[in-house]
Amino acid sequence: MCVACDYTIHRRDHHYGWSRDYPPAAVAKSGSTIHFECLDSSGGQLGTGSTAADVVNLDFAKVNPVTGPVYVEGAEPGDVLKVDIREFVPSGIGWTAVIPGFGLLADQFTDPALHIWTYAPGTMAPSLFGPGGSVPLKPFAGTIGVAPSEPGVHSVVPPRRVGGNLDIRDLSSGVTLYLPVEVEGGLFSVGDTHAAQGDGEVCGTAIESAMNVTLTLSVLKGQKLESPRFTTPGPVTRHLDAAGYEVTTGVGPDLLTASREALSRMIDLLAAEHGYNPVDAYMLCSVAGDLRISEIVDMPNVVVSFYFPRIVLS
Amino acid sequence: MCVACDYTIHRRDHHYGWSRDYPPAAVAKSGSTIHFECLDSSGGQLGTGSTAADVVNLDFAKVNPVTGPVYVEGAEPGDVLKVDIREFVPSGIGWTAVIPGFGLLADQFTDPALHIWTYAPGTMAPSLFGPGGSVPLKPFAGTIGVAPSEPGVHSVVPPRRVGGNLDIRDLSSGVTLYLPVEVEGGLFSVGDTHAAQGDGEVCGTAIESAMNVTLTLSVLKGQKLESPRFTTPGPVTRHLDAAGYEVTTGVGPDLLTASREALSRMIDLLAAEHGYNPVDAYMLCSVAGDLRISEIVDMPNVVVSFYFPRIVLS
Repeated sequence: MCVACDYTIHRRDHHYGWSRDYPPAAVAKSGSTIHFECLDSSGGQLGTGSTAADVVNLDFAKVNPVTGPVYVEGAEPGDVLKVDIREFVPSGIGWTAVIPGFGLLADQFTDPALHIWTYAPGTMAPSLFGPGGSVPLKPFAGTIGVAPSEPGVHSVVPPRRVGGNLDIRDLSSGVTLYLPVEVEGGLFSVGDTHAAQGDGEVCGTAIESAMNVTLTLSVLKGQKLESPRFTTPGPVTRHLDAAGYEVTTGVGPDLLTASREALSRMIDLLAAEHGYNPVDAYMLCSVAGDLRISEIVDMPNVVVSFYFPRIVLS
Repeated sequence: MCVACDYTIHRRDHHYGWSRDYPPAAVAKSGSTIHFECLDSSGGQLGTGSTAADVVNLDFAKVNPVTGPVYVEGAEPGDVLKVDIREFVPSGIGWTAVIPGFGLLADQFTDPALHIWTYAPGTMAPSLFGPGGSVPLKPFAGTIGVAPSEPGVHSVVPPRRVGGNLDIRDLSSGVTLYLPVEVEGGLFSVGDTHAAQGDGEVCGTAIESAMNVTLTLSVLKGQKLESPRFTTPGPVTRHLDAAGYEVTTGVGPDLLTASREALSRMIDLLAAEHGYNPVDAYMLCSVAGDLRISEIVDMPNVVVSFYFPRIVLS
C-alpha cells in the first residue's frame, strides 16, 4: 500500500522485453508518485518449495517481467526522466540460482543450483544463509528503464543506454536515477527486484524477491544524457562494510579474464578457509561481494579485485 | 623514524624494475618489522615548483623506483609472504599528472598537465584542490611486491602475479597483504606511495607522494596462492562516502569501453554542473573516484559505473 501515491500499477500489468509499441498501463502527469507491484524475476516460477530441478525447467519466455509501462505526459525524445526511488516493500521470500549457461563462471558451474531465502521484510535484518553466515540486505530494482527508440520487441536481458536490466545494486531507496528518453511518454517500467546483490551479480542472480516499489517520475527538459546516471544521498556500503573485506585479485591483460580470476580465487578462499561448498560460495559472492577495477592504466596489465564482506562470515 | 623496527631500508637503496638478480638491501628474519623510505613515483623529478612542461621531460628510465629488495630468510618458491602494513609517514607534498600517452582517456587528453598538492601529514585532513573541492586522503603503497621467477629485469609498470604496481587503493594501514613467493628470499620491495587514489587510477597517476612505510614481513609455508590477496580489518570507504556519490554509467559489450564511457560521462558531468576544467575533472576522478563493475552477466552487455564522492565537492 502507498499512502500518497497518484497511481498504482498492479502486477497483472507486466510485460516481457521492451517495446515502444506496448500500450501504457497508465498515463501519468510529470511529478506523479507511482506504486508498482513487481513480480520476482522468475515471474513466480521459483519460490518456497522449488528445487534445483525447477531451475532447469524455467520458461525463459516468462523470465524477468517488468511492471508498466507508464506513459509520462510531456516526455519527448531527448528529454531526461528523473526517477526518485522512494520505497521498497519486500515480500520476505527470495531465491538465488545458478542457471546453466548463465553467469560469470558458467563454464565452471554447469549444474543448476537453487537457494531459497527468507528474511524479515519489516526490519530487513541480515538474512541467514543455510550453510553458514548471514547477508546484509538492501533492496533495489534490478531492471528499471524506458523503451528504446528502435521498433520491435527487445530482450529484457541486456541493459541498454535507456536503462533496463542494469542490476546496479545501489539503485535503492533515497536514490535519484536519470534515464534518457527516446520515445513519446518514455514508457517507464520496473521489476526484477532484489533484496541484496553485490557489484557484478556474478553468478547471474541476486536475492530475487517480489517487492512493491514506490517511485516519483518527472520529466526534465534541456538536459543531455547518453546513459543512466544516479545520485546517492549518502554512503552505499555501510550495511555490510563494518568488519572489512577479504579481497582476491585477478591480474592480467583484460578486464573480463581478471574478473573471472578474482572471483574464482575468492570461491577457492571461501571453500578452503570457511568450508563452503564451491557453488554456495559462488552464490554468496553474487549476493554479497563486489567486483572492483583497482587499476586500469598500468599497461599491459589491469587489476580487478573481488571484495567479500567479512560480516557475512561472522 | 620507526620506534620498534628491526631494519631500515633507506631511500638510496632503490631500484628500477624487478629482477631476481638484484642484490638484497637487507637480509631479514621472517617476522621482522622493517621501515622503508620511499621516493615518489617520479623519483624526485616532479615536486613543488614543477610545471606541466616538466611532465613531458620526465626520464621514464627513472620512474617508479621501489625501495628494497629485502631477502626474507626461509622464503622459498611456492611459499606465501605475509605483509602486515603498519604505518605510513607521509611527506605532505604530492603531485598528480596527465602524462601524454598514458591513462584511460589518453586519446582525449593528449596535453600534459600537473597539479601540485600540499596536505597536512599529521592529520591527513582532506586536501584542498586548487580549482575547487577537497580530497579525503588515505595513504597506501601503489607498488608492493616480490621478484618474479623469470630471469632478467622486468618493467615496474605492469602489475604481476607477484604483485608490483598493483595500485590497489585499499592497501593502507592495518591491512594484511599476501604475496606469492617465486624466488629464494622473496626479494620484497615497496614504493610508489600515494596519498589518495580512486579505484582504477584512471588518469594514470594518484596523489603521488614520498612517504616512509613500516611493514612486517613473514613467511607462510604450505599455502597456495596464485595472485595477491589481502584482508582489511574494517571499512574501506568511510573517509569519503558520507555525502554519497554522483554516478555515471557505461553500458555496452565490453568492460574497457564501458569503463571509458562511464569516466567520460563523469568528466562531462563535473564540467557541466560543477564548473571544472575537463582535465581537472579527469585528475580529480583519478584521485577520488571509483570504477566498479555493476553487472557482468546480462549478456551481451555489461555495466561499469563511475562513482564520484560528493564530499569532494562540498
